[in-house]
Amino acid sequence: MRDDAPRSWDSRAEAATFYGFTDLPSVAQRGTVVLTHGEGPYVFDTAGKRYFDSNSGLWNMVAGFDHPKLAEAAKAQYDRFPGYHAFFGRMSDQTVMLSERLVEVSPFASGKVFYTNSGSEANDTMVKMLWFLGGAEGQPQRRKIITRWNSYHGVTAVSASMTGKPYNSVFGLPLPGFLHVGSPHYWRFGQEGETEEAFTQRLAHELEATIIKEGPDTIAGFFAEPVIGAGGVIPPSKGYFQAIQAVLKRYGIPLIADEVICGFGRTGNVWGSQTFDFVPDAIIASKAMTAGYFPMGAVVLGPELAQRLQNASEAIEEFPHGFTASGHPVGCAVSLAAIDLILNGGLLDNVRALTPRFEAGMAELAGHANIGEWRGAGLMGALEAVQDKATKTPFASNLSVSERIANTCTDHGLICRPLGQSIVLCPPFICTESHLDEMFEKLAAALRQVFAEVA
Amino acid sequence: MRDDAPRSWDSRAEAATFYGFTDLPSVAQRGTVVLTHGEGPYVFDTAGKRYFDSNSGLWNMVAGFDHPKLAEAAKAQYDRFPGYHAFFGRMSDQTVMLSERLVEVSPFASGKVFYTNSGSEANDTMVKMLWFLGGAEGQPQRRKIITRWNSYHGVTAVSASMTGKPYNSVFGLPLPGFLHVGSPHYWRFGQEGETEEAFTQRLAHELEATIIKEGPDTIAGFFAEPVIGAGGVIPPSKGYFQAIQAVLKRYGIPLIADEVICGFGRTGNVWGSQTFDFVPDAIIASKAMTAGYFPMGAVVLGPELAQRLQNASEAIEEFPHGFTASGHPVGCAVSLAAIDLILNGGLLDNVRALTPRFEAGMAELAGHANIGEWRGAGLMGALEAVQDKATKTPFASNLSVSERIANTCTDHGLICRPLGQSIVLCPPFICTESHLDEMFEKLAAALRQVFAEVA
Repeated sequence: MRDDAPRSWDSRAEAATFYGFTDLPSVAQRGTVVLTHGEGPYVFDTAGKRYFDSNSGLWNMVAGFDHPKLAEAAKAQYDRFPGYHAFFGRMSDQTVMLSERLVEVSPFASGKVFYTNSGSEANDTMVKMLWFLGGAEGQPQRRKIITRWNSYHGVTAVSASMTGKPYNSVFGLPLPGFLHVGSPHYWRFGQEGETEEAFTQRLAHELEATIIKEGPDTIAGFFAEPVIGAGGVIPPSKGYFQAIQAVLKRYGIPLIADEVICGFGRTGNVWGSQTFDFVPDAIIASKAMTAGYFPMGAVVLGPELAQRLQNASEAIEEFPHGFTASGHPVGCAVSLAAIDLILNGGLLDNVRALTPRFEAGMAELAGHANIGEWRGAGLMGALEAVQDKATKTPFASNLSVSERIANTCTDHGLICRPLGQSIVLCPPFICTESHLDEMFEKLAAALRQVFAEVA
Repeated sequence: MRDDAPRSWDSRAEAATFYGFTDLPSVAQRGTVVLTHGEGPYVFDTAGKRYFDSNSGLWNMVAGFDHPKLAEAAKAQYDRFPGYHAFFGRMSDQTVMLSERLVEVSPFASGKVFYTNSGSEANDTMVKMLWFLGGAEGQPQRRKIITRWNSYHGVTAVSASMTGKPYNSVFGLPLPGFLHVGSPHYWRFGQEGETEEAFTQRLAHELEATIIKEGPDTIAGFFAEPVIGAGGVIPPSKGYFQAIQAVLKRYGIPLIADEVICGFGRTGNVWGSQTFDFVPDAIIASKAMTAGYFPMGAVVLGPELAQRLQNASEAIEEFPHGFTASGHPVGCAVSLAAIDLILNGGLLDNVRALTPRFEAGMAELAGHANIGEWRGAGLMGALEAVQDKATKTPFASNLSVSERIANTCTDHGLICRPLGQSIVLCPPFICTESHLDEMFEKLAAALRQVFAEVA
């Protein structure tokens, strides 16, 4: 650079980084927020401005941004053994201990763990496992994957194909063989006069009709988030998983719970599948698994899938799959500490203790004439903006209502996430009631301001 | 557990972990090696046994297993800011600094960086970028990806489809549209009387014929490792990349260098593409990028692809792709330290200084009647076992010659990797000449022992 003037963080960021999942017009207008450190549920930018992060980063920083026990676990492991893989029958002691712990806290009496670096890789891996099983068990045609519209399963080409979001069409996705059925969002998709129970039955029938139409022996698996997360925090309609699982069992199709967001406490239990009272055939985990302190994902196989996959692997001597950093010793040490903190260190207890206050705050905001519904489970929730509450009519999309609300919040030191026309909140598990009060007060002010402009 | 006896690490590992890329008969016979710590290029198992890791973990632990500067960088960042994402126009200061540094050390005058957690995710992301570009630029049919037989690009369904290894057939891969052309391995695939230059021209003709047959406007990109790594350390034949790149340019097809293994010094230059004298359109990086101390991958886009992708993203307001831990502040801080250590801290210099000794050791072992060739670049090399040196006839595969050599080495405290019928060596960059002497002595003894049994 010829210019002697120091360049701003903002322009430095934009010069060399290719942005993903970022509204580029907002960045062009408002600049990039470059963050330097955190304290509890707050993060600070290069100008020293403080933000309450009601997203917990990306649902994952459940212990906040400076938890001493997690930093300590990472630092101790960096001094002990700072990296290894889990190929060729070798792995670190931390990896062995985490596998045991994950099976112990899983809903399964026994099982096996396969490590990845992300939820995307874990979903992608599970699909490969199901394809592998089909081939090994004489059903190579069993390759189709069913998920739901508006679900989110990741961004590799396969996990993006599972994701039921329209934006993936820009990549020419989904790939063939990735099918989507209805989202269990009763408020939005329930028909005139239809009870919630009847809505659930309709979705179960739709699933069964899809299976029959495609051919039951062509379906490799069904993946579902217990609460749809990045699709806008959509808990299942009443009896949904019981109805769905009955259909899947009839055709021998595994039910995989994508617990990347729900897992490790978000809904008030260790697993979202516990909150909604079903036992899946395998679990996809990530995010809170390390409280965001290390990239890690895992497939936790229940006993039946573990045994079938073990048999299939032994038959060809090897399961030819694995990531370089699968089962990284630092990640495993961090995850052991995070699980301990959540289960034994009071974080899960705090999620349960805070939930009534969280629900009350959401319910109060939902009283606004331009909030159609609030929905959620445990410490995750969404407020759905509408132009007309009675008819559930959304605002015109060119008004960018949720982005305006989120940007107004950011101006006032509150990070929250616009998703469609909803605002999503998922605060860290270490919050106090007064943190929640601050969050709701700032959000209420932003809602008043933006709705006054657009309504 | 009813049994009061402490369970062995071995049985604990097998009970709860699903093994990938692991020869299961070997594990059944020999058990799992559970590792607890490292010192320089050595790792130690739970019984205290020491191993020289001539694999550098998985090519990645180039600074060994206890480098104070890398642990220090990680620990300092855990105290400063232990986690954040790079979505929504927000990112950490470390992320900004690493992007600048990566562009600075890249072969590009300018460019943009996109972060992932692994090489698999980076290759998968690059494919999605190329598909996105095709759609955005009015060529939605431009989706086919060309790679080479025996290349390795990862394990997501798409990156495994790029990988040219027969084992992926157990998953029903490659997916349609992933094409493979010949490997530039002259010793193995050169024809009777064919010069190396003529062999290279034959491969370039094969590539061009494939492009024409498939339709040039259906090809989205060509990916290649400068030296094929997990395919058995195969440097390109003479003039290969110059011949290939001329063909690709003729048809407007981007050349993507998968530098996951070669990048950051392995071949004696920062990039393998420098060593083999070509400038790609984008680089896929991972592994040595953090010296294995943190899971991280990156796509480094050269100026033309960066601009086209930026235009395409602005046209739809957002590039809808990204991983939760993309640009993780700890990973970025570690990578900044690793790059500094390699470039300014003497590691790259040491690779260059050690290369003559490494080559001499390889050449000496290649004198054995059952070694067909040695090949390599910088501090990566392979010895190819053959039953008959003159005819290049391999051993019968049921003899598992390379596995026997590797297992014999392991018994004597040397970890090396069997790949096909070759033994691969890629020691850490922090080695001394006496480390290399130890490695070659142990390997020579194992070769003598195993060849005496099988030859």
